[in-house]
Amino acid sequence: MPDEFSRIARYFAPLAGEAGLGLKDDAAVFAPPPGRELVLTVDQMLEGVHFLSGDDPALIARKLLRRNLSDLAAMGAAPLGYLLTTALPASLPEDWLAGFAAGLGHDQEIFNISLLGGDSSSSLHGIAVTATLLGKVAPGAALRRNGARAGDEIWVTGTIGDAVLGLQARLGQRQDPTGFFTQRSLLPVPRVGLELAGIASAAIDVSDGLVQDLSHIAEGSGVRAVIEAGLVPASSEAAALGEEVLQARLTGGDDYELILAVPPGREGALKAACGPLPVTKIGVFEPGAGVRVLSGAGPEMAFKSLGWKHF
Amino acid sequence: MPDEFSRIARYFAPLAGEAGLGLKDDAAVFAPPPGRELVLTVDQMLEGVHFLSGDDPALIARKLLRRNLSDLAAMGAAPLGYLLTTALPASLPEDWLAGFAAGLGHDQEIFNISLLGGDSSSSLHGIAVTATLLGKVAPGAALRRNGARAGDEIWVTGTIGDAVLGLQARLGQRQDPTGFFTQRSLLPVPRVGLELAGIASAAIDVSDGLVQDLSHIAEGSGVRAVIEAGLVPASSEAAALGEEVLQARLTGGDDYELILAVPPGREGALKAACGPLPVTKIGVFEPGAGVRVLSGAGPEMAFKSLGWKHF
Repeated sequence: MPDEFSRIARYFAPLAGEAGLGLKDDAAVFAPPPGRELVLTVDQMLEGVHFLSGDDPALIARKLLRRNLSDLAAMGAAPLGYLLTTALPASLPEDWLAGFAAGLGHDQEIFNISLLGGDSSSSLHGIAVTATLLGKVAPGAALRRNGARAGDEIWVTGTIGDAVLGLQARLGQRQDPTGFFTQRSLLPVPRVGLELAGIASAAIDVSDGLVQDLSHIAEGSGVRAVIEAGLVPASSEAAALGEEVLQARLTGGDDYELILAVPPGREGALKAACGPLPVTKIGVFEPGAGVRVLSGAGPEMAFKSLGWKHF
Repeated sequence: MPDEFSRIARYFAPLAGEAGLGLKDDAAVFAPPPGRELVLTVDQMLEGVHFLSGDDPALIARKLLRRNLSDLAAMGAAPLGYLLTTALPASLPEDWLAGFAAGLGHDQEIFNISLLGGDSSSSLHGIAVTATLLGKVAPGAALRRNGARAGDEIWVTGTIGDAVLGLQARLGQRQDPTGFFTQRSLLPVPRVGLELAGIASAAIDVSDGLVQDLSHIAEGSGVRAVIEAGLVPASSEAAALGEEVLQARLTGGDDYELILAVPPGREGALKAACGPLPVTKIGVFEPGAGVRVLSGAGPEMAFKSLGWKHF
C-alpha cells in the first residue's frame, strides 16, 4: 500500500471537484447554492460490522455513498458532494484501494457528485470508511420525521425486505441462485430525485428495519403507525419465500427505500412524483403511539426486535 | 454501554444545535450564512494510531475538535458546527462515553460551535471517532497552500515541537515533571479567530511536522522554503533540552500552530492580527523547490523523515 500522500494523489485527487482544491489544502472551500438550505449527513462503514471482509471494495464504496444519499433522499434533498475518511490496514493490497476508488468514481458519475475533501489514516484493525454528504433543499422544504398527522397514509417506495435476505445469502444461510437478494444487499438504490415537497408530510429511509424506522416517525410526530403486513410490497423473489421470511423482511433493514407519510387525497400527486418507481400504501397514522402491524384476520404481529441497533 | 439510540439521546442530543434537529432526523438542515463561502474539513482519531488506549476520553474529544478547528484556522475560516461519528466497542464502559461527551460540550462552549448530526456504530476492534467541521470565510479570502511567492517571509505562531516531546513522555521515553509537554500533546490550541486575510499569502497548520507541512506550501506554491533551525520558536521547557531534541521538534508534528507565508512589509499588520499570540519569522521563500533547513554556520540539516505519514 502506498503512503498517505501517494494514496491521496493517485486515487482520491482524481475524484475531487472544484471545491476540493485538488485535495491539496487543509479543507474544502464551497460556495453554497444561493437561496437553498444545506442538508448534511454522515455514515460510516466498518469491516465486520457493515460489510464482510471479502466484499468487493467497489461495492463497499458505492454502498457507503448510497447509504448517505438515501439519508439525503429521506430529507427531500438533492446531493451536492461529499467528504471521505479512510482508515486502512498497512497489509491491505493496493488493489483494494484501486477498486474502492473506482467504485466512488462510478457512483459520482451516476449521482453527479464530487469529492470535496477527506482524511486518510492507517488502521491497526480492519477497514473503516466514512462519508459526509452535502445536499441542498429549498428553504423549509426538508422532509422531517415529525410532520406526520393522524389520518396521513403510510406509503413505501420499491420493495421491502430483499436486503436482509441477501445478507442471509452472503452469510451462507440461504440459497440465492439468481443473486438477486445479494445484489439488493450490496448495492441499494437511494431514492434521490423524487420531488416530494408539498406531497409527503414526513419521511425516513429504511436503514434499520421497516418497523423500527416507522417507529421513529411515530415517535417524532406523536402518532401511532398502523400497517397491514400483507400490504408491505415484496419482490417476486421474496414473495416466493412466503410467510416464513415476513418477520425478517419487516425488521431486517438495509433496504434504503423511503417510508412516506402522505395526507389523504395526494395519491395521484405522489405517484406522479415517483414516476416509474412503484409506491405502495401499507397503512395509516392514527392518534396514539408506537407501531401496530396487523396480519389480515389473524392476531397483531409481535416482534422480538423492531430492527437493527448497534449494541 | 447503552444501545445506539439511548447513547444518542443521552449523550449527543444535548450537544445538538438548532440545525441538528435534536439528532432525530436523517440529516441536519443548515441555512448557510449569507455572503459567505463554506469551509469543510474532516479528521479521524483511532485508538492506537492517534491516541493511546488509556487517554482521557474528554481530552480525546477535545483534540478531535481542535485538530479540525486547526484546519479551519489554517484556511482563515471561522467555525460554525460539526458532525460526528463514533465506533465504540461493546465492552467500553459507559463512563468513557460520558467523559467523551463532556469534552465535546466543553469545547463547544469555548469555540461557539454545536453538533449538527452524526452516526453511532458498534466497533469490533478499538475506538474510532471522526468529526466533520464546517466553517465560513469571506468569498475568495480562504488561505490556500498555493499562494506563497518568492520573497514572502515564513512565520509561525506559538512554539514548535512541544507536542512530540509530550508524546515521548506519554510513551515513557522522556521525563515531564511539570506535565507541560504532555498537556501540549493532549490538548493543542487551534489558532482560530486570527484575521489573516490580506496579510498572509498562504497558510497550513503543523499537524504532521514543521518541515513536512512547510514542504506542502513549497510544493503547492512552486517555491523553495529556507528556514533557520535556530529561529524556530521553542518553549522554555523545550529550549532547556537543547539541540538534542531539535530534529524531533522540527518533524514531530501535532503542534497545530500555523505556518504563514507573509509578503515583506506586513510584520506590523501580522503582529496586530495575532495580538497576544507570539509569532516568529523563521525564514523566507525563494525561487526553487523543497525545504532547506539551515543551522547557523553549520551544514544544512538533513532529515531521515520530514514528518508523520500514515504508512
